[in-house]
Amino acid sequence: MQKQAEYQEAIKTKYPEQVVIAIARDKNGKANPVTLGWTMIVSGKPAMMAIAVASRHYSIETIRHSKCFTIAFPSSQMADAALFFGSRSGRDVDKLAEFDAQHGQVHCKTEPAQEIDSVLLTEAVANFECTLESETVAGDHIIFVGKVICSHINTEPKKRLYTVGPGHKLGSVS
Amino acid sequence: MQKQAEYQEAIKTKYPEQVVIAIARDKNGKANPVTLGWTMIVSGKPAMMAIAVASRHYSIETIRHSKCFTIAFPSSQMADAALFFGSRSGRDVDKLAEFDAQHGQVHCKTEPAQEIDSVLLTEAVANFECTLESETVAGDHIIFVGKVICSHINTEPKKRLYTVGPGHKLGSVS
Repeated sequence: MQKQAEYQEAIKTKYPEQVVIAIARDKNGKANPVTLGWTMIVSGKPAMMAIAVASRHYSIETIRHSKCFTIAFPSSQMADAALFFGSRSGRDVDKLAEFDAQHGQVHCKTEPAQEIDSVLLTEAVANFECTLESETVAGDHIIFVGKVICSHINTEPKKRLYTVGPGHKLGSVS
Repeated sequence: MQKQAEYQEAIKTKYPEQVVIAIARDKNGKANPVTLGWTMIVSGKPAMMAIAVASRHYSIETIRHSKCFTIAFPSSQMADAALFFGSRSGRDVDKLAEFDAQHGQVHCKTEPAQEIDSVLLTEAVANFECTLESETVAGDHIIFVGKVICSHINTEPKKRLYTVGPGHKLGSVS
């Protein structure tokens, strides 16, 4: 049976929600990762994916500048990095360098993307190189659609990272 | 370590993927449910959600006609209905009536939406009533953004339905 509820209460039923890390270079060449739960596939042929990014976020500028971005599916071991990239602003810090400085050199290893000017996350489950197709304002976020032009998977099987409950509680699901 | 892979192989790492059922009335007043995995929240204030619907699907016509739609989060007990609504076309059949005829009268009970001319799925985890905000072409799909104007939750706690693996394998996750 249904009962009417406040949106904030009703939307708590969304969990688990997938997590991605989107990465684009800013005008200074700095690769800027941001953690996002609002993402979906949007097209099969050609393959396209969408992300919704808060309008005030620095990532907006980086994606508009680069006109391309990586979508990485972080592994369940990458919760620390996902939390870090989701709670700092690239306006203030070099998130990849700062995270490594705090957590050890190889904690969030990157490697160059192949077809776009961005990076891949080496320990991710998969990485998708996207060229920017469109952007659409939706309330307090902007939807970016990217065409996937190159895909990569981890050579070892890994589980994806999800937000499993309120308060940025991250983990794997089965 | 990353290795390049075909998109079709790489995207298999996406599971589990959330499932929603979107419902809009066609020009004859028939409520037409469609099962979708490609969906995301896109805005916090105001609350908005997006769905990506295949361009050839009848649902496109129904959403354009109604300018509103329900997004239901089916429960893990609703796998049969989700498969049925995702594999028939509303051009040919009245999916809700047909499913009930095949599965018993109360198998996918509906009730009127409160603020829009659509229905809610009574056994769903939650239902969100949306007014159509925008549509954007993305490859072979169309992204519809809806503003959530009324929300409902089940009075009993239920688990959401997910696609847990290729071949429309549905189930719950924990």
